Amino acid sequence: MKLIKEIIQGEGRLGKVFDYTIQIFIFLSLALLSIETLPNLTVKQREILNFIELVIILIFSLEYCLRLYVAPKKFKFVFSFLGIVDLLAILPFYLAGLDLKAIRFVRLFRIIRLLKLTRYNTALQRIYRALLLAKEELLLFLFSITLLLYLSSVGIYYFENKAQPEVFSSVFESFWWAVITLTTVGYGDVVPITLGGRCFTIVFLIIGLGVIAAPTGLIASAMNTARTEEKEKEEEEKNTKN
Amino acid sequence: MKLIKEIIQGEGRLGKVFDYTIQIFIFLSLALLSIETLPNLTVKQREILNFIELVIILIFSLEYCLRLYVAPKKFKFVFSFLGIVDLLAILPFYLAGLDLKAIRFVRLFRIIRLLKLTRYNTALQRIYRALLLAKEELLLFLFSITLLLYLSSVGIYYFENKAQPEVFSSVFESFWWAVITLTTVGYGDVVPITLGGRCFTIVFLIIGLGVIAAPTGLIASAMNTARTEEKEKEEEEKNTKN
Amino acid sequence: MKLIKEIIQGEGRLGKVFDYTIQIFIFLSLALLSIETLPNLTVKQREILNFIELVIILIFSLEYCLRLYVAPKKFKFVFSFLGIVDLLAILPFYLAGLDLKAIRFVRLFRIIRLLKLTRYNTALQRIYRALLLAKEELLLFLFSITLLLYLSSVGIYYFENKAQPEVFSSVFESFWWAVITLTTVGYGDVVPITLGGRCFTIVFLIIGLGVIAAPTGLIASAMNTARTEEKEKEEEEKNTKN
Amino acid sequence: MKLIKEIIQGEGRLGKVFDYTIQIFIFLSLALLSIETLPNLTVKQREILNFIELVIILIFSLEYCLRLYVAPKKFKFVFSFLGIVDLLAILPFYLAGLDLKAIRFVRLFRIIRLLKLTRYNTALQRIYRALLLAKEELLLFLFSITLLLYLSSVGIYYFENKAQPEVFSSVFESFWWAVITLTTVGYGDVVPITLGGRCFTIVFLIIGLGVIAAPTGLIASAMNTARTEEKEKEEEEKNTKN
Repeated sequence: MKLIKEIIQGEGRLGKVFDYTIQIFIFLSLALLSIETLPNLTVKQREILNFIELVIILIFSLEYCLRLYVAPKKFKFVFSFLGIVDLLAILPFYLAGLDLKAIRFVRLFRIIRLLKLTRYNTALQRIYRALLLAKEELLLFLFSITLLLYLSSVGIYYFENKAQPEVFSSVFESFWWAVITLTTVGYGDVVPITLGGRCFTIVFLIIGLGVIAAPTGLIASAMNTARTEEKEKEEEEKNTKN
Repeated sequence: MKLIKEIIQGEGRLGKVFDYTIQIFIFLSLALLSIETLPNLTVKQREILNFIELVIILIFSLEYCLRLYVAPKKFKFVFSFLGIVDLLAILPFYLAGLDLKAIRFVRLFRIIRLLKLTRYNTALQRIYRALLLAKEELLLFLFSITLLLYLSSVGIYYFENKAQPEVFSSVFESFWWAVITLTTVGYGDVVPITLGGRCFTIVFLIIGLGVIAAPTGLIASAMNTARTEEKEKEEEEKNTKN
Repeated sequence: MKLIKEIIQGEGRLGKVFDYTIQIFIFLSLALLSIETLPNLTVKQREILNFIELVIILIFSLEYCLRLYVAPKKFKFVFSFLGIVDLLAILPFYLAGLDLKAIRFVRLFRIIRLLKLTRYNTALQRIYRALLLAKEELLLFLFSITLLLYLSSVGIYYFENKAQPEVFSSVFESFWWAVITLTTVGYGDVVPITLGGRCFTIVFLIIGLGVIAAPTGLIASAMNTARTEEKEKEEEEKNTKN
Repeated sequence: MKLIKEIIQGEGRLGKVFDYTIQIFIFLSLALLSIETLPNLTVKQREILNFIELVIILIFSLEYCLRLYVAPKKFKFVFSFLGIVDLLAILPFYLAGLDLKAIRFVRLFRIIRLLKLTRYNTALQRIYRALLLAKEELLLFLFSITLLLYLSSVGIYYFENKAQPEVFSSVFESFWWAVITLTTVGYGDVVPITLGGRCFTIVFLIIGLGVIAAPTGLIASAMNTARTEEKEKEEEEKNTKN
């Protein structure tokens, strides 16, 4: 009993084996998502895929029941973030049984299985801490960038709507142009052709790239701070031990 | 009387409510700008939009009058930066009454309402301080980049004009190519095809990306400095209190 | 005998001359790779290129034999990383003699000759050390980016497959779109056209560019750390000398 | 006599006026370069442009003579970097008198006038110092990037040549693709279409963007170091004064 608890919580040698096994099945279930989309699969191949799918669902269901059984406060676990994620990863399968046509849509939910990795991967927690550190600035920049994108969408609409009424048909369509331009992806499907629109684009790019450049440095500096804090903690623990 | 003053200046609990209400109306007026551009609106929908527009203008007008009333030096407020912005945000509506055809152009001025946020959003002031810190370097890089863009426009013109006389018709048209290439947007609407033009583009990109990369780090480092200064100030204030 | 050993190991004045000579031949062999691909070469020009190829192979073969002769533990050298690289750089030529049609494919292996430079170029070792320092974070980001690319491939497939069944024919094809978009290359050969697909792209870009921006800062900070460590070592050596 | 020397060397109040006047004429001569390329200029407008050109050349000639007159060692000045630049800025005009058709080509040399700014603009010297600091690393990265570009050109040639023999006709043509892709410009004029070519592009982009990201941080950190050094110098000078 106590052993099962330790294994599920990833403690000890067997716990590690359990954790890695679950990780492999998560990746397998993700891989299935893409293999299913291959256009020319035979009936037999589809059957094999469905069987693997069934096995994965069974393993995840068993894992969920064990976690629920092991949890000291059942109610708290069910409504915790990871508890909901665990449930959503398996629920679609059982619900789909009621309505077969819903299967295709339901598959998208399986991506949530990925979030389970947050329970196992300690490295992801460092990123999370870095994001917390830079949260305020990142939100501010996200706000600035959104505002800039919106204003430039309005601006380019007034410049280009007359010349290209089908491409820049409303501000909402211009927003697509603004995002693709400011991120410097530049597909080339929506391009300003008027002199005014081009001048506007140039000004928008000079301001926008300055704004969009800032988060890069912020995340990097936050990562550094997170690393320094870890080192300091380790050294403190060393000192208290001595 | 004293209470109104406090509210308008955003002090106390009611002041905060006032500030957030105004913020919501600013965003609403910005949203209107894009909804108006939807191509297939019915007459009734247009009437509703016009009514919301009228309400927003009335609220902003009232706010402007109150601010003017509360200001200790009326003249100074009217000609302060924020005073002019506040006036420009409502003026277009009243001026448009004189000439109906001017309405479409006048709407662009409403974007200035956004600048009002500088009064409410303390976070934006940190960015402003960071920009002040890196001002000298940023201007220098802006100058270098402009010069580089100009020179490459001249250069590519001499290489590509003969091969593509319509695309690279003058140095001014080449400038559009230079900006879209150096920012790595690369729409693909203007592309060098001669061997000379392509070699020139490669050299230009290697130099240019080095130059354009610098501001990224500068803004980030300035943001860091601004944060450090804030922390030091807070600690100083703590020490003086103790 | 002792002199030859010193020369091969790059010690002394003659050793440096030897090292630089080998470097020049490596670059020459690399240049050959591209000159051979020119479409309109005469028979005589091809003969000259083949002769240069023969000379290079002979020199590299001689070098390999000398290195083997000089090595204190022959077996260890043959199976060391650089030993295998040295062998692979010349082996294709001798194997090609057995089957003439394999020549074209075999040429690709010659690129491995480049790795020989790691033996001569001390500067490359600094990069290597910086990569070791940031290894953990880089792997984590590589993992995150791969996962993000995979999930967005699945996502865009469900949005765009119906509208563009030929462009987004399976998740594997969508992966090409995801990489070209997230790296902001944006060729424009695969572009989402549905409203859902475009909204998905915008969300994907905002998250993805944040993630992809982090390694930039990480590598730079690791390079700084590597430089600082070098300086400290040099100063320590100075102090111990005094 | 002594006054003229001071003025030319930019000392005192009149010296500053002289420096700024020359700067204005340099920018005017640069502006001329692009105005001349406008396709539909009348004969009279061309005459005016030619007249302004003549005036600028006269002023620059006078400036060159004065600098030569003032210089303590005439020979050293003529063969110094700035001396050669000054001469090249005016020489094309006089040489063009010999052969009228050479005029168009000769104009390109006028861009060198820009380099004169290095004499006046102290801010540019900080960038120069930062580049010196990061010189070693920058050269190393330039080398790595060039090598990577070359190898990927060879690689993509073998993958795409058969499928698109006209676009990827030789390794030299592939190099254009490699530069446009790695800089993330991505015009879309040259795009891999085979499965092998696309997989190769993905691997190349993941490695390449890591390498190309490093110089960004290096320049920024070098700029920081340059700024810190300036501050330390200023403080040292203050201390020695006290």
